[in-house]
Amino acid sequence: MGKSKDYDAELLTLQTQLVESQAWTIQQGRKTLIVFEGRDAAGKDGAIKRITEYASPRQTRVVALPKPTDRELTQWYFQRYVAHLPADGETVLFNRSWYNRAGVESVMGFCKPEQTAQFLKDAPRFERTLVDDGVKLIKIWLDISKEEQSRRLAERLQDPLKRFKVSALDAEAQIRWDAYSVARDRMLAETDSRSAPWIVVATDDKKTARLNVIRHILHMIGGPGSQCRPDADVAFHPSRAKGRFAP
Amino acid sequence: MGKSKDYDAELLTLQTQLVESQAWTIQQGRKTLIVFEGRDAAGKDGAIKRITEYASPRQTRVVALPKPTDRELTQWYFQRYVAHLPADGETVLFNRSWYNRAGVESVMGFCKPEQTAQFLKDAPRFERTLVDDGVKLIKIWLDISKEEQSRRLAERLQDPLKRFKVSALDAEAQIRWDAYSVARDRMLAETDSRSAPWIVVATDDKKTARLNVIRHILHMIGGPGSQCRPDADVAFHPSRAKGRFAP
Amino acid sequence: MGKSKDYDAELLTLQTQLVESQAWTIQQGRKTLIVFEGRDAAGKDGAIKRITEYASPRQTRVVALPKPTDRELTQWYFQRYVAHLPADGETVLFNRSWYNRAGVESVMGFCKPEQTAQFLKDAPRFERTLVDDGVKLIKIWLDISKEEQSRRLAERLQDPLKRFKVSALDAEAQIRWDAYSVARDRMLAETDSRSAPWIVVATDDKKTARLNVIRHILHMIGGPGSQCRPDADVAFHPSRAKGRFAP
Amino acid sequence: MGKSKDYDAELLTLQTQLVESQAWTIQQGRKTLIVFEGRDAAGKDGAIKRITEYASPRQTRVVALPKPTDRELTQWYFQRYVAHLPADGETVLFNRSWYNRAGVESVMGFCKPEQTAQFLKDAPRFERTLVDDGVKLIKIWLDISKEEQSRRLAERLQDPLKRFKVSALDAEAQIRWDAYSVARDRMLAETDSRSAPWIVVATDDKKTARLNVIRHILHMIGGPGSQCRPDADVAFHPSRAKGRFAP
Repeated sequence: MGKSKDYDAELLTLQTQLVESQAWTIQQGRKTLIVFEGRDAAGKDGAIKRITEYASPRQTRVVALPKPTDRELTQWYFQRYVAHLPADGETVLFNRSWYNRAGVESVMGFCKPEQTAQFLKDAPRFERTLVDDGVKLIKIWLDISKEEQSRRLAERLQDPLKRFKVSALDAEAQIRWDAYSVARDRMLAETDSRSAPWIVVATDDKKTARLNVIRHILHMIGGPGSQCRPDADVAFHPSRAKGRFAP
Repeated sequence: MGKSKDYDAELLTLQTQLVESQAWTIQQGRKTLIVFEGRDAAGKDGAIKRITEYASPRQTRVVALPKPTDRELTQWYFQRYVAHLPADGETVLFNRSWYNRAGVESVMGFCKPEQTAQFLKDAPRFERTLVDDGVKLIKIWLDISKEEQSRRLAERLQDPLKRFKVSALDAEAQIRWDAYSVARDRMLAETDSRSAPWIVVATDDKKTARLNVIRHILHMIGGPGSQCRPDADVAFHPSRAKGRFAP
Repeated sequence: MGKSKDYDAELLTLQTQLVESQAWTIQQGRKTLIVFEGRDAAGKDGAIKRITEYASPRQTRVVALPKPTDRELTQWYFQRYVAHLPADGETVLFNRSWYNRAGVESVMGFCKPEQTAQFLKDAPRFERTLVDDGVKLIKIWLDISKEEQSRRLAERLQDPLKRFKVSALDAEAQIRWDAYSVARDRMLAETDSRSAPWIVVATDDKKTARLNVIRHILHMIGGPGSQCRPDADVAFHPSRAKGRFAP
Repeated sequence: MGKSKDYDAELLTLQTQLVESQAWTIQQGRKTLIVFEGRDAAGKDGAIKRITEYASPRQTRVVALPKPTDRELTQWYFQRYVAHLPADGETVLFNRSWYNRAGVESVMGFCKPEQTAQFLKDAPRFERTLVDDGVKLIKIWLDISKEEQSRRLAERLQDPLKRFKVSALDAEAQIRWDAYSVARDRMLAETDSRSAPWIVVATDDKKTARLNVIRHILHMIGGPGSQCRPDADVAFHPSRAKGRFAP
C-alpha cells in the first residue's frame, strides 16, 4: 500500500513534467513520434493511457491502426502509417506500428519471409528520412515474461470489462513464444540505429515499467524534464539486453 | 466516502453493461453516434472518458475536431464532421460537434447570424438523413450552473496537470453566460426532433451526471442494458426543462 | 464538314466563355457542383472532357468514384461523395453521383427497393443543405436513344482504344432498357427541385449535346456567359420532357 | 502536314500500345509511378494528356498538388505525396513532384539551402523503399530551350484559352534561367539511381517529345510494348546529356 501510494505520487510528478515537456515541444514546434511495441499484454495500452492522461488533446494523437484493408495491402507498406505522422508541435503515439511486419506478421505467416527481410532493410532507411526531417523518434519495447503474459491473458478471459482486449490471436502468443523471441531479437538487432534507437523496458512490474517509460520519454524529448533517467535495472539499450530479456 | 464507493461500484456495473451493449451493436452491425454538448467545464471530457474506458478500440472513436482550417471554412459546413461518421458496428463520440455554429460561433461572433439561422434549419434535415440511414443519434446537453462553472474554471488555473484544459475563451464563458443561455434555449428548441431528440443532464454533481449519461445511452441503444433509465431528476427532455436549467 | 467546322468554332467560343466564367467564380469564391447522369455511352466522359479542357487545374476536379469498398457500403450513403464537394472558388464535376442508387443500383438489384425509396426522399433534403450553404448545383441528364446506345456500345467492342470503356454491365443496358426508363422517370420526378433542378439534354447528336450542355452551365453559373441559353429543342426541363425522351 | 499526319498515326499506334500495356499492369497487379519534371512550359500537361487519353479511369490518377497548406509545411516533406502513391494495378502520374524542393523551391528561395541538400540525400533513400516495395518508378525530365520557353510563355499571355496556365512565376523562369540550369544539373546528378533512373527528353519539338516519352514508358513498364525504344537523339540518360541540354 505504501508502495502503491509512492507510485501514485511519483506518477503524478512525472505526468506534471510531461505536461511541461509537451508545452515546450508545442512552443518549439517539435515533432514527437513514440512507437510502442511488445508482445500481447505487455502493457502498451496502460502505458499510453498514463502518458496521454493530461496531454494536450489538440496536439496529441494515439494511433492504433486496424488490420489493413484489401487496398492498403497492395499499397506501399509504410503508406497507411505515414498518414498519421506528427506535424510541428504534435506528439503521436503508435500503439503497434510498422514493426508488425517484423513481429506478428512474420511469426503468424501473414507476410512472406522476403517481405520481413525487405522490411528490416527499409525501416532504418525510412526512419532516417523522418529523423532528418526533424521528427524525434522514440521506440520502446515492453518486455514481458512468459509466465506474466500467461497470467494476464488468463485474467482477461475472466473479466467482462476486458472483453474487447481478448483476441483470437492471444493463444498463439504463448504457443509461439520462442518464435516471437527470435523475431524480437532480429528486429531489435537490425533496426536499432543511432538516430532512432530502441529502448527495452522490463514490464512484469507494470507500475515500475510505466514510470520508467515516462522517464525515458522525458529524457529523449530533451526539454524540461530531460534530466530524468530511467532506472538502469528496468530500462536498457538492446545491446546490453543479452541475458536480461524476460525468459 | 460511502457515497464515493457506491459511485465506483455503480460505475463499474454500468461500464460492464456498456461492454455488453457494444458487443451487441457490433454483432448487429449498428451505427451509434453520440453528440456531447455543453458549456466549458460541463464535464464532457470526463463523461466520455468513463464511457470509452473499456470500449472496443477498433469500433470506437472519439472525435474532437480542432478549429477549421481556412479551406474547411469554405466547404459545406457539415463536411468535416461527415468524414468521421460511424460505419456499421461503430460507435463515435463527438466532443462538441456541428452544434458549435449554434453555440460558441454564434455567441462569440465567429459566424454571421444568418449562418446560425441557416444552420438551425439545416441541422434537423441533415440529421434526418443520418437517422434514415440507420444511425442511432444520441444528443446530450450537459447542463452546468454558473457558480459551478466558475469554480471549475478557477480550479483549472491552479492545477498544472490541467494546463491544456485552459483556453483563451474560458473567461468569456462567464462574461457571456446569458448569451450562452439564450443560444442554448434556441438550439434545443429548434433542433430537438422525434428521430434525434436531445436529453439535458444536470452536471453540477459530476458523478451523478456520468452515471445518468451512461444510463441514457444504454437505454437509447436498445440492446442489453436497454432497461436502464436515467434518473428523472437529473436527466430530462428539453420540453420539460423549463425552470430546471442550471441558473 | 462545314458543320464540323462550325462545331469546332462554336466549341472554342464556348470554352473561352467557360474560362471567363470560371475566372469569375474563382474571384467571387463561388462553389459549383455539376452532376452528370445518363445511361451508359450517353456521352458523359466526352462532355466533361470538353468542359474541363481549359479549366483551372487547381480549382477543378472531376470525380468518378469507383464502386464502394466494403467499409463504405456500411457508412452513411452520401459520405463518400461529401468528401469531394467543392470549397469556395472550386468547380467539381461528378461523373455519375449519388444518383446511382436511383439508377444502376436499383435496376441491377445492387440495393433494396426500400433503399432507393429512402434515397429519393433524402436526396432533395441533402441537396437542399448544400444549396443553402452556397453550392450552385447543376444536374444534367444526358438522354440517349436505344438505337444510338446500341450502336455506340457495339463500336466500343471493336475499338482497341476504347477497351477501358467496355464494362461487364454494358449488355444489361440494352436488356434492361425499359427498367432504366422507369427508374429515370421516377428519379427525375422525385428529385427535381426549385433549388436544384434537372435539365435533360438529348445526346444522340454528341456535338450538339456538348454545346448545349456548356450553354446551360454558363447560364446557370450566372457570371459572364450567363446570357447563353441552351437550344430548347435539345435541352429541356423534365416537366416538359413528356414524349420527348429518346425512345 | 504530312509530318503532322504521321504524328497523328504514330501517336494512335503508341496510345493503343499503352492501352495494352496498362491492361497488362492491371492484370499483373503492378504499381506504376511516373514523375514528370521540367521547367515551366516544357510540355508536362500536354504529354500527360496524351498518355492518359485512353487510360483506364479507375486505375489511373494524375496528381498535381497545389502549394502545401500551413499544416503540410510542418509535416514530413514526402507525406503529402505518399497519400497518392499507386496501389497494385494502378498507374499514377505526378505533374511535378517532391522534386519541387530541388527546383522551384530552391531557386525561388521557398526553402533553405540545407533543406534542399537534405532532400537530395533523402530522395534516393525514399525512392529506394518504394522500388523495393514493387513500385515501377519512371522519372522524366522534359528539357526545353530558353528561346522556346520564352516563345511559349509569350504565347500563353495572348491566348484567352490558356489563361489558367499563366502563373505569377512565369517571368522568373526566364530571369532565373541559369539558376534553374544549375539546380537541374545537381538534381539529376544526385538523384539518378540504378533502381530509379532519370531520362531526359528534349522537348522543343513537342510532338516528337510526346512520342518518345510514351516509347520510354512502354519500354520501362516491361509488358507488351516493351520492345519500344525512344529515339537516342531525343531521349537520353543524364550521364550522356553533357553538352546536349537545351541552352
